[in-house]
Amino acid sequence: MIIIKIGGGAEINLQGIIRDLAQVKDKFIVVHGANALRDKLAEDLGQPKKVVTSVSGYASVYSDETMIDQMMMAYAGAKNKRIVELCQRHGINAVGLSGLDGKVVRGVRNKAIRVYEGGKLKVLRDYSGKPEAINKDFLDLLLDHGYVPVLTVPIIDEQNNAINTENDDVVRVLQKAMCAETVINLIEAPGFLENKDDEGSLIRSIRAAELEAREQQVDGRMKRKMLATRRLFEHGASKVIIADGRGEHPVTDALAGKGTVIE
Amino acid sequence: MIIIKIGGGAEINLQGIIRDLAQVKDKFIVVHGANALRDKLAEDLGQPKKVVTSVSGYASVYSDETMIDQMMMAYAGAKNKRIVELCQRHGINAVGLSGLDGKVVRGVRNKAIRVYEGGKLKVLRDYSGKPEAINKDFLDLLLDHGYVPVLTVPIIDEQNNAINTENDDVVRVLQKAMCAETVINLIEAPGFLENKDDEGSLIRSIRAAELEAREQQVDGRMKRKMLATRRLFEHGASKVIIADGRGEHPVTDALAGKGTVIE
Repeated sequence: MIIIKIGGGAEINLQGIIRDLAQVKDKFIVVHGANALRDKLAEDLGQPKKVVTSVSGYASVYSDETMIDQMMMAYAGAKNKRIVELCQRHGINAVGLSGLDGKVVRGVRNKAIRVYEGGKLKVLRDYSGKPEAINKDFLDLLLDHGYVPVLTVPIIDEQNNAINTENDDVVRVLQKAMCAETVINLIEAPGFLENKDDEGSLIRSIRAAELEAREQQVDGRMKRKMLATRRLFEHGASKVIIADGRGEHPVTDALAGKGTVIE
Repeated sequence: MIIIKIGGGAEINLQGIIRDLAQVKDKFIVVHGANALRDKLAEDLGQPKKVVTSVSGYASVYSDETMIDQMMMAYAGAKNKRIVELCQRHGINAVGLSGLDGKVVRGVRNKAIRVYEGGKLKVLRDYSGKPEAINKDFLDLLLDHGYVPVLTVPIIDEQNNAINTENDDVVRVLQKAMCAETVINLIEAPGFLENKDDEGSLIRSIRAAELEAREQQVDGRMKRKMLATRRLFEHGASKVIIADGRGEHPVTDALAGKGTVIE
């Protein structure tokens, strides 16, 4: 079992990825983002992301109902259905699912955060959280009958609310539940870079045991990505490939060892 | 088997409909629209519907790629996932699907139309068509395992393109494929009205044999709706209820015979 995570950047070559996937013999599940599309939609609608800062100084995107609607439109709507359409054109009988559908990805909603707004202390709670469990029976039912699940956010919380979460965390619980040996993470870079501003500084292989040290080298989204990668190995993954989603053959190249192979 | 068609108007009481559905003992499938949401999205994005007029004088909405993207956002994205969320809150294990997913609704794309644009004859082909077939095995697989399909447009054509179609036509092929005895059509009116401007002029019952004559009484969308209803009986439906989707208990009321019952 392979999990293919497709980043939501504008430069990702979806056509190439799906064409490659049509040649893959193993069972696989797709998890995809849509952040570039969501940001464009939010901008076009004149409803940009709201960022709130907690009293402890931690900044986060505030996922209110409007933002969840946008997420449903961009991730579960246009991007998911265009990927399903591409899959069908290449003979992959895809079924696009948010985490709500068949409760396929269940999570726990984040607790309230305390923020200062206009000098006043306020308690806010948004629709975001962490994935915790997978409806494995449902995914097996689809896979056993020849359907390929194409998953995206939002997911569903313990009160059956749609909530935002990180797709990297979805991949983590999915890998564990489905006992996937291989995870391919397709991003807008050649892989894990020694120097994030130099695409020539690709690190071709990393031992899983090195990951904790590597995490210290990086910051921001890449740090979270490395942490998520480390956790995959704690739950039995044997190979994670961080590879370029922009090339002509992103999946074939990744499986041939291009990118950063972590074992 | 019951098919519940939920209109896409802004006044439809989704909460009431889903609460009622949680009490229904028969197997059922939901088909829903989202026209009010799509129109609002198109307006907010500054990309209103394009209407083209063929050389034979027939006006139709032009479904280009941008419009299909909007349809994916509004129908298969926000509206579909909010309905699935509501279902999950009421204990219905819903799985939201466009016609692309598992090729559940396959159709045939419309041929090119000839239009005059700026005095010149042009040949245009958009992404619209007619549904022709249902992946019954897939729907049975879901239903037999306790999942409730929640279907919407777009559907998939013979070249695996996403295409726009009428949900009433989706209901027609679905009823035939699934041998559904009962179809409930929830709209923003008390049912079929003798005088469309007078909600007090509800016709409580119509014999199926009368439908052709009734079609002559009406025009526009209602005429197409009556034609679609007549076809349901040609394919073995025994009861169609056109009922008010705006009340407190739309489904319970419809099943109790409120609205227009056609037998």
